[in-house]
Amino acid sequence: MTPIEFVTPSPDKKVLEEGRAFSPRFDAAGLLTAVVTDAGDGTVLMVAHMNSEALALTLETGIAHYWSRSRRTLWKKGETSGNFQYVVEMRTDCDQDAVWLRVNVAGDDATCHTGRRSCFYRTVEFSDGNAYLAIDGSAPPSAA
Amino acid sequence: MTPIEFVTPSPDKKVLEEGRAFSPRFDAAGLLTAVVTDAGDGTVLMVAHMNSEALALTLETGIAHYWSRSRRTLWKKGETSGNFQYVVEMRTDCDQDAVWLRVNVAGDDATCHTGRRSCFYRTVEFSDGNAYLAIDGSAPPSAA
Repeated sequence: MTPIEFVTPSPDKKVLEEGRAFSPRFDAAGLLTAVVTDAGDGTVLMVAHMNSEALALTLETGIAHYWSRSRRTLWKKGETSGNFQYVVEMRTDCDQDAVWLRVNVAGDDATCHTGRRSCFYRTVEFSDGNAYLAIDGSAPPSAA
Repeated sequence: MTPIEFVTPSPDKKVLEEGRAFSPRFDAAGLLTAVVTDAGDGTVLMVAHMNSEALALTLETGIAHYWSRSRRTLWKKGETSGNFQYVVEMRTDCDQDAVWLRVNVAGDDATCHTGRRSCFYRTVEFSDGNAYLAIDGSAPPSAA
């Protein structure tokens, strides 16, 4: 399969914001930010990063691929857990430096490596000048 | 007002992932990724970045503040447009390098500088080996 060649971003803001060319603006490290939500109920499941190879594979296969910054490797989400992410829709933002994926999660519907459905299982609370975390109803790993 | 002092992230993954301490992991540029959704219907409105000052001001005031990477300045979203973002809930993810804000948008409910409600007004389509963009029903700036 010939890899997708992404268009170089135009310096013209109008073209970038109103045009039909998909010209992802990878950052200095060669990465885009990807926000992933559940296509069913809209829950934000995770935030991850894609290099051009991960983005191309996601488009070509319909299954989300990322770049793992910690492991420095291409990462087909779900390859070990079975929790593949089937992409229902991909969107990009005005300046094309981020994508939003609406996905259906396979397997046991867990996106977070802790075993929870979403990586965002804690709320940030603020009182008396202090910020702290509260865990929502998500099952902890031991109970998962 | 005394600025919030954020806790230094623990090197212990268990503490970072299961603890109650909010210890945001700012990247090498001193930034966290912030995903912003509409508290009403869950639409992803924008992706932005926060430095520690923006994060502290957001917690203290309940109104979203960011760091503008292009303008290199603190940015109280809505200060010129009136489209302030009132934070209903803030969450963080497992490794605490991102926050998710659920917000109510004031003013004329436009988050994108193009005049649209969301910055993600284009879908990425893929056919015959080519990726291109399609604008959804969002009004273009001239018609807004």
